Amino acid sequence: MDMLQLGKQVLENQPFSQLLGAVLTKFDSESTELRIPVKDALKQQHGFVHGGVLSYAADNALTFAGGAALGTGVVTSEYKINYVRPAIGQEIIARAVAEYAGKSQAVCRCDIFVVNEGKEILCAIAQGTIARLSAAPSVE
Amino acid sequence: MDMLQLGKQVLENQPFSQLLGAVLTKFDSESTELRIPVKDALKQQHGFVHGGVLSYAADNALTFAGGAALGTGVVTSEYKINYVRPAIGQEIIARAVAEYAGKSQAVCRCDIFVVNEGKEILCAIAQGTIARLSAAPSVE
Amino acid sequence: MDMLQLGKQVLENQPFSQLLGAVLTKFDSESTELRIPVKDALKQQHGFVHGGVLSYAADNALTFAGGAALGTGVVTSEYKINYVRPAIGQEIIARAVAEYAGKSQAVCRCDIFVVNEGKEILCAIAQGTIARLSAAPSVE
Amino acid sequence: MDMLQLGKQVLENQPFSQLLGAVLTKFDSESTELRIPVKDALKQQHGFVHGGVLSYAADNALTFAGGAALGTGVVTSEYKINYVRPAIGQEIIARAVAEYAGKSQAVCRCDIFVVNEGKEILCAIAQGTIARLSAAPSVE
Repeated sequence: MDMLQLGKQVLENQPFSQLLGAVLTKFDSESTELRIPVKDALKQQHGFVHGGVLSYAADNALTFAGGAALGTGVVTSEYKINYVRPAIGQEIIARAVAEYAGKSQAVCRCDIFVVNEGKEILCAIAQGTIARLSAAPSVE
Repeated sequence: MDMLQLGKQVLENQPFSQLLGAVLTKFDSESTELRIPVKDALKQQHGFVHGGVLSYAADNALTFAGGAALGTGVVTSEYKINYVRPAIGQEIIARAVAEYAGKSQAVCRCDIFVVNEGKEILCAIAQGTIARLSAAPSVE
Repeated sequence: MDMLQLGKQVLENQPFSQLLGAVLTKFDSESTELRIPVKDALKQQHGFVHGGVLSYAADNALTFAGGAALGTGVVTSEYKINYVRPAIGQEIIARAVAEYAGKSQAVCRCDIFVVNEGKEILCAIAQGTIARLSAAPSVE
Repeated sequence: MDMLQLGKQVLENQPFSQLLGAVLTKFDSESTELRIPVKDALKQQHGFVHGGVLSYAADNALTFAGGAALGTGVVTSEYKINYVRPAIGQEIIARAVAEYAGKSQAVCRCDIFVVNEGKEILCAIAQGTIARLSAAPSVE
């Protein structure tokens, strides 16, 4: 099975990713791309996509990018996100790359776009640490 | 209407908060508390609550705490979250306070707990900037 | 030798800490306090203490707090800082605590104050990850 | 006077930047580059350049990049830095770009390299918010 198929399978096994409707559209050693079609249930009170959805997208794309770089099971240790524009549109796209990969962790960046009438608009940027599972706090 | 009722109304107007089942349980000038009962749809592939849910809880609790401190409409500009333990349990609790509030923004902190068989366990901590809506990038 | 003496020795072996004039005033399992007397060489163009000095103080206080919690050689993996007020005064104080300590890392918070005519004023807050040296990227 | 000359003048008016020996080598609407020749006084106890120096470089490069994007007086509101490799070498280079610039703030990214025997090695990455001075907490 190729990497993208493997990644899709992981995402399908995450009930929360299914609830949000996330789809993995790229997953290789170069970069990761996650897409979420916008539906009303993902919005906040002003009709924009909720920040929590953008955070989810950043978090998961960072994790997949770190996993591809480390070649193993991983968890997100931490990340930071800046929201720069309201997310108004039909689809969210999160694209992440590993800027560094060592033995125990990768440090990744992610750009989060909203697609509005075919045009991609940057709405958030993120940066975070992905840890190899054996070194992760989650399994301590 | 008191502040907690006002806050509950805002949360009820966020379709994404309703999808996750979030409830505002404290909202005053001192602190904000948001709770999310855990259900299978909020989990990842290992049965833990998905990081995206903890991020949503941190993001929203920070926003409410900043809003209470600034006394106005606000948006989250940015935040950072560290996951420290896997979230295994029956309920997520996010508690946020404003450490600083100025004219245009507040800087807040948030502790995120999972309640497991009645015991609160710290599973993430966060810090972020909440901006007054008129000064926020969202309305530029 | 007690912990505070041990910590002071580490700080004395950091030429950059000596250049800035940093002094460790508390270092135990509960918390860490680092102080820097303000001198002109630490300022920026408007006469405030330079943000880089506050960052240094946060970084080093976080590292010491993480080291005390982990009981071993450590490095700072990452941190985030929010500046909230201009630092005008005679002394900088950074106080850090470990909010979580596991096998391989600690997650810590830090408050940074400026002392102006005897009064402590919060000028920045920080949060970061301190890694045990054997798990740290620095030694890979 | 061109932008680079203007930027150099600002840096020369920062006593802390002079103490560290920072030099502005690029400053235009596209990007900012700051360089710091390594000297013993900038190191920590293991002979690496102190994290506080990398933080200073990131902070200042982010500020200049945000200032170039906003075209006005600015301050750094907040930033986050991940250290990825020990900084061993003869010079530190911080390169920053604005990923977004609005009316009141810019969101920027920075790569921090150490030059070792002519080779640039990535040692840290950062992301932060630069605020227009009138909207900044510093002048409230």
